[in-house]
Amino acid sequence: MNGAIGVFDSGIGGLTVLKEIVAILPKEDTIYLGDTARVPYGIRSADTVIRYSLENAKFLLGKNIKLLVIACNTVSAVGLATLRDRYSLPIVGVMEPGARKAVKVTKRKKIGVIGTERTIRSRAYSHSIKMIDPEIEIVSQACPLFVPLVEEGWTDNNIAFMTAERYLQGLQDAKIDTLILGCTHYPLLKDVIRKVLGDWVLLVDSAEETAIEVMGVLRAGNLLKDGDEKPVHEFYVTDTPEMFVRTGISFFPGVGLEDVKRVTIA
Amino acid sequence: MNGAIGVFDSGIGGLTVLKEIVAILPKEDTIYLGDTARVPYGIRSADTVIRYSLENAKFLLGKNIKLLVIACNTVSAVGLATLRDRYSLPIVGVMEPGARKAVKVTKRKKIGVIGTERTIRSRAYSHSIKMIDPEIEIVSQACPLFVPLVEEGWTDNNIAFMTAERYLQGLQDAKIDTLILGCTHYPLLKDVIRKVLGDWVLLVDSAEETAIEVMGVLRAGNLLKDGDEKPVHEFYVTDTPEMFVRTGISFFPGVGLEDVKRVTIA
Repeated sequence: MNGAIGVFDSGIGGLTVLKEIVAILPKEDTIYLGDTARVPYGIRSADTVIRYSLENAKFLLGKNIKLLVIACNTVSAVGLATLRDRYSLPIVGVMEPGARKAVKVTKRKKIGVIGTERTIRSRAYSHSIKMIDPEIEIVSQACPLFVPLVEEGWTDNNIAFMTAERYLQGLQDAKIDTLILGCTHYPLLKDVIRKVLGDWVLLVDSAEETAIEVMGVLRAGNLLKDGDEKPVHEFYVTDTPEMFVRTGISFFPGVGLEDVKRVTIA
Repeated sequence: MNGAIGVFDSGIGGLTVLKEIVAILPKEDTIYLGDTARVPYGIRSADTVIRYSLENAKFLLGKNIKLLVIACNTVSAVGLATLRDRYSLPIVGVMEPGARKAVKVTKRKKIGVIGTERTIRSRAYSHSIKMIDPEIEIVSQACPLFVPLVEEGWTDNNIAFMTAERYLQGLQDAKIDTLILGCTHYPLLKDVIRKVLGDWVLLVDSAEETAIEVMGVLRAGNLLKDGDEKPVHEFYVTDTPEMFVRTGISFFPGVGLEDVKRVTIA
């Protein structure tokens, strides 16, 4: 079927999700919107996040998309229901696929969740997990410094390691065996998190799980792309593109970010 | 004269400036606006910052203010001229007072400036300093992790120290004798910065210098408050007040933040 996969995030982090989507669905066209003029969402109130999300969705729906991916944990946590109420196209958030995967792999039924302050305070991951298996124990931790560390490119130095140690101490003490990386920036900190937690804690990367879900939904709805034209990848941001282009490369190496367009939303 | 001192910042940092103003002008009424729905400004483009600033100024001008303080280095760096063009009331930014003070105290004519990426890239401090004394050498460093560290409350731990060491290394190597804290959050990191740089580097706190300038402008214009009524301090934010109230207390201990109102701007 024609039409692109629309993806939005508050900023640049959603590129980790787009990267996984393009990896397993290389023929599909994609349109990415990063709301860089209003990033970060993780520190804002739920109703502000919902208002911004509706505006972002409206923009992408004006561009012939067949499926919408909410590549932002904060929005997935607080705004997904509102978006699904409002629009009839399939909408995939990054939260549910990660929660399902974690439930599937945990052995001791002890799952850790890390994310922005807003994601953690929403308790959305806990809720999703408990819906599937109410016996699972969930230990959550907000990690507000992880996003700025990633954006500074400090993903493998001492400061990143000590910050991770400090944030993850409580999860270690609670003896989790599975950790959900509940923020699209966090896959870039996988090495440092693994160094702190050791190999026996399985890291669930929501970006990977979301891409798998997108493939499933497209297949089930018979929405996969027809024909063999070269895929088109469009990028929009709401602030000037310079910083997005400069930082984006570490989130999605190899993607063509040379033609990022600026749009006004709101 | 009647009328309040209006103060705006992108978020909470400007409270350090308000604190100094209230300390030296305890009789004056103040109105503070924190644009918390769109914070941080430091990562946005100049024209987005200017647009937001004009909207903030318009809100405060609707509230009978006699002087406007731009308690945000980013706006002072990129938007002050536009605001002064647009409005006729006296407008004081945080940048010029800090620059003047640094020029006054440097002995070796080597000044360091730290701030957000946007403030540093604007070269506004360098420009202001060179206007006064073109012989002064300026060494600048963006410190993107300082704001999240302060907001996390990590101002005196190892991570803060190592981050400061890393950011300030180049300034030390350049043998600066004066450092401008070019962001309203940074006064909360004074101890850790002093620990890294040693006592022989003088720290210029823009908040203090700005308050002195506000007093001077009010005096010169015969705008000081008449009468002896108890001062009124109003607070407005553009997102829900919870986080502002919770974090604000470390920026301005003792201020009454119990009645922060939410407003919609834009």
